[in-house]
Amino acid sequence: MNGATTNPDPAVVCMAAAQVKKCLEVTKRLGGENFVMWGGRDGYQSLLNTDYKRELSNSATFCRLVANYADEIGFTGQLLLEPKPREPMAHQYNFDAETTLGFLDLHGLTYKFALNLEANHGTLAGHSGEHEVEAAFARRKLGSIDVNRNECLLGWDTDMFPTDPALSTYVMKRIVDQGGLAPGGLNFDAKVRRESTDVEDIFIGHINGMDCYARGLRAAAKIIEDGRLDSNTKKRYADFDDTAIGQKFTRGEATLADLASHAATTTEPKVRSGKQEKAESIFNAFAYGKV
Amino acid sequence: MNGATTNPDPAVVCMAAAQVKKCLEVTKRLGGENFVMWGGRDGYQSLLNTDYKRELSNSATFCRLVANYADEIGFTGQLLLEPKPREPMAHQYNFDAETTLGFLDLHGLTYKFALNLEANHGTLAGHSGEHEVEAAFARRKLGSIDVNRNECLLGWDTDMFPTDPALSTYVMKRIVDQGGLAPGGLNFDAKVRRESTDVEDIFIGHINGMDCYARGLRAAAKIIEDGRLDSNTKKRYADFDDTAIGQKFTRGEATLADLASHAATTTEPKVRSGKQEKAESIFNAFAYGKV
Amino acid sequence: MNGATTNPDPAVVCMAAAQVKKCLEVTKRLGGENFVMWGGRDGYQSLLNTDYKRELSNSATFCRLVANYADEIGFTGQLLLEPKPREPMAHQYNFDAETTLGFLDLHGLTYKFALNLEANHGTLAGHSGEHEVEAAFARRKLGSIDVNRNECLLGWDTDMFPTDPALSTYVMKRIVDQGGLAPGGLNFDAKVRRESTDVEDIFIGHINGMDCYARGLRAAAKIIEDGRLDSNTKKRYADFDDTAIGQKFTRGEATLADLASHAATTTEPKVRSGKQEKAESIFNAFAYGKV
Amino acid sequence: MNGATTNPDPAVVCMAAAQVKKCLEVTKRLGGENFVMWGGRDGYQSLLNTDYKRELSNSATFCRLVANYADEIGFTGQLLLEPKPREPMAHQYNFDAETTLGFLDLHGLTYKFALNLEANHGTLAGHSGEHEVEAAFARRKLGSIDVNRNECLLGWDTDMFPTDPALSTYVMKRIVDQGGLAPGGLNFDAKVRRESTDVEDIFIGHINGMDCYARGLRAAAKIIEDGRLDSNTKKRYADFDDTAIGQKFTRGEATLADLASHAATTTEPKVRSGKQEKAESIFNAFAYGKV
Repeated sequence: MNGATTNPDPAVVCMAAAQVKKCLEVTKRLGGENFVMWGGRDGYQSLLNTDYKRELSNSATFCRLVANYADEIGFTGQLLLEPKPREPMAHQYNFDAETTLGFLDLHGLTYKFALNLEANHGTLAGHSGEHEVEAAFARRKLGSIDVNRNECLLGWDTDMFPTDPALSTYVMKRIVDQGGLAPGGLNFDAKVRRESTDVEDIFIGHINGMDCYARGLRAAAKIIEDGRLDSNTKKRYADFDDTAIGQKFTRGEATLADLASHAATTTEPKVRSGKQEKAESIFNAFAYGKV
Repeated sequence: MNGATTNPDPAVVCMAAAQVKKCLEVTKRLGGENFVMWGGRDGYQSLLNTDYKRELSNSATFCRLVANYADEIGFTGQLLLEPKPREPMAHQYNFDAETTLGFLDLHGLTYKFALNLEANHGTLAGHSGEHEVEAAFARRKLGSIDVNRNECLLGWDTDMFPTDPALSTYVMKRIVDQGGLAPGGLNFDAKVRRESTDVEDIFIGHINGMDCYARGLRAAAKIIEDGRLDSNTKKRYADFDDTAIGQKFTRGEATLADLASHAATTTEPKVRSGKQEKAESIFNAFAYGKV
Repeated sequence: MNGATTNPDPAVVCMAAAQVKKCLEVTKRLGGENFVMWGGRDGYQSLLNTDYKRELSNSATFCRLVANYADEIGFTGQLLLEPKPREPMAHQYNFDAETTLGFLDLHGLTYKFALNLEANHGTLAGHSGEHEVEAAFARRKLGSIDVNRNECLLGWDTDMFPTDPALSTYVMKRIVDQGGLAPGGLNFDAKVRRESTDVEDIFIGHINGMDCYARGLRAAAKIIEDGRLDSNTKKRYADFDDTAIGQKFTRGEATLADLASHAATTTEPKVRSGKQEKAESIFNAFAYGKV
Repeated sequence: MNGATTNPDPAVVCMAAAQVKKCLEVTKRLGGENFVMWGGRDGYQSLLNTDYKRELSNSATFCRLVANYADEIGFTGQLLLEPKPREPMAHQYNFDAETTLGFLDLHGLTYKFALNLEANHGTLAGHSGEHEVEAAFARRKLGSIDVNRNECLLGWDTDMFPTDPALSTYVMKRIVDQGGLAPGGLNFDAKVRRESTDVEDIFIGHINGMDCYARGLRAAAKIIEDGRLDSNTKKRYADFDDTAIGQKFTRGEATLADLASHAATTTEPKVRSGKQEKAESIFNAFAYGKV
């Protein structure tokens, strides 16, 4: 209840270590390719009794020991952290993708861990599921995905089967863009509603979820084939590739004074539309299909 | 409208550079000791037209140029970033303290920038104001504070004068704990309500705000003098300092196997109360005073 | 700034009356069929300076005067209130559909006013847009709709063009179910993003919005034709129509003792699945179409 | 799991009736003075399988049967409904104070039921605890209070012991204003944190809670004695009592045309400050005491 890797009592941290060590060994033995650590109680209920800095530092130490032990026993699978902002704790340290990547960077662990994301953990953190995927994708740290969904406005994890084709299309597009998700995968960490008590409901829930991601893949493939969405975004930033000052900035060779003097010697920048409605029009035509 | 440091058009980035350069020069000339960059439009409205990775990379490049130019002209004041999660944009890159620190770490900028925090930006990000202060404090990056307040449940920035003594006590305690806030300070980036149209209202708003932080400082001093709050927290983690296995873990010299074998050879850890109600009792007695 | 119908100063209420009177007359002259009152500032920023009861009572009086004047001049169009929970005020009295209907009921105004709903006002109130429509539909008070959308997680009104086919399908189904929306209609109280500065963007935004509701209508028609969704729901409650105790309860002729004695003399109720995943499967197949 | 008073199966409604009947009889026998119905599962998870209108109608029928049976057996205590917006269900019908009062009004049950409020149910509904109390107070329906607290930003019920003197002062002021709360009372429907495992913690939690409401009462008494807060609010609305047009409007004898012609014949209304900062200054001085 007071956390595993962040517990104030080293004796509990040792118990956690024993469990993780055993699980790593079993995972290797079974040929497992992924190993997810979810710090569900690694956070705080109140700052008034918490050493925030020490808990984070201890958690980093623990992750390092896990990475070392994985190497030692020759586990070649992927180690993953799973962000979640709260519930059961008032605050959990691996709050979201960016916070977790920052934690890994600070402690020199980024080389060894990727992220296991869950879209509804993103909404609990005030982000869209798409945002979480994008943050991990941008860092090449999108390791695996729990494709559950939440009601957006509920403040706890409902872990429902996914049904939103816009989200599944976005997620599958990023997976294709990065050349696949292996050794990670799409995981239904989902359940039917408590009120769904027929055996049939479990089949229907899984079918809904699989269809949702199958159509997401199909729509993503079409968007990539079509090419307009990506090329429009690329064009928006083209002057960083195509103008002298843009190239110099991008290469990191311009100084602040260079930029300022460019501003002084050129005309007012043109107003350029972000064309969000156009982008939505293209994306939604593929994601939502025809009625 | 499309961002300053993250604008898709390098010509706009150059305009931003010219402004920041001039402001830095003026700040130096005036003997300014702090220079805050708030990326109010450095974020996105939609991922569908945004190159998330490139925008963050450009923003880091820009910050580096600012740091270099500050050195070049001999500006010895403090450079600060101000986290805010959203509004006006749907997402802003400097989402909260941890995300902003992660951004600085990734791009090697942490040595040069500290954070300017605003409690109500924390609540917009789903954190308490105390959390934001703690995150910066833990990294020695608490540089300056805008002591406004929000209604907790409103989803936009109301920038009201502070009135909550629990928050001001927590903030002032952390400031005293770190030996002060200079060259930063407490800033009222606040305004009276639109409906408060008398001249008198502006005085009362400021008085409320100053009194709130003055009593926060007084309460913080008493809490530190009293000593129980900090010593209770310290005791909670004492076994990391006082037991052999705790010390070994803390020094980073234990392996996962060491921890696991400790767990195997010792008895079940004792259940230890977090004593949150006790901590609240001590803190609130000082923060809220006598009626 | 202190409200129109709820203003603490009767002189301002008189100004509001003059405006509303003139607008009613003009609306009649132009052959207008709807008259919407949106109480954007009829709420409070702080309870500490507010007479909650009096403001609500004054607002009801005002609405009654409007209804009387409409009758007096022979305005035969529809009078509507538009719920919105907050922004610009911290709290607005017409918080959501149920609260506004409760206000109308308490003050005997329900006979004269219907609701003009906006889906994103629902999400600001912690409801789905579907919920708001359902609450009004259930009372036969769904008068007109602003079909804007919000980002679900943003705490202010973004008034974007609608793009979500699940919402538009639900809304159009309820409109067909009640035999149409006249004299109300679907209104785009929407705008393109601030960053969408091309003339073309305005066209695309409108096309996205119109297509969204056109496909919603098409999908709704198919769902109604298909019949399974409604008949499944109807079957779920069938024992209220088909069993003796259910009928007696529904007719209001059973006493608590009758129900209790029925429970005592019959076997344990069967566990019955809510079959939510099945319902989602049917609804989404129509709403999202084929990819 | 599918609700008690709103269950789609009348056999379950009968079971609920048997339970409520027995509990009412036991309450009478024990001399109980309050009887609270909390519809924790009387709501929906999804509108797609729910007959919203029928469920609300059935719930009203059930409440009527309870009221009748209470009369029949001579139970003279208070019947109460307890609003809560969600959790465990996605939506619960007794969403907040106003919605619940609207439900009672629509179905002619207001004469018989009062509200049992819980501040943290208010924050889950997007309201402050103060708002919920005010809404019930304004209707003379503030029957009893569960004085728990939540973390404002958490989306589920944490049921912590109260510690906020501003809330307790506001609540106690309204209780004194209405001449007490009997036969209802202040109820700690609270628990210590899961991590608080010492017996002592339970004592401290209760002491914190009792002290919080004791000082709330003391502060409320002083605010009433001082008189400025109430008289300032009264003065803000004084022109409804002191001017001819205000009195006419308040008596319901003015027409829209009367108000409009008043506006036409008088000068522009004066800008009047809401003086919120002043009100906060007075209230907080009493609520927070001296440090």
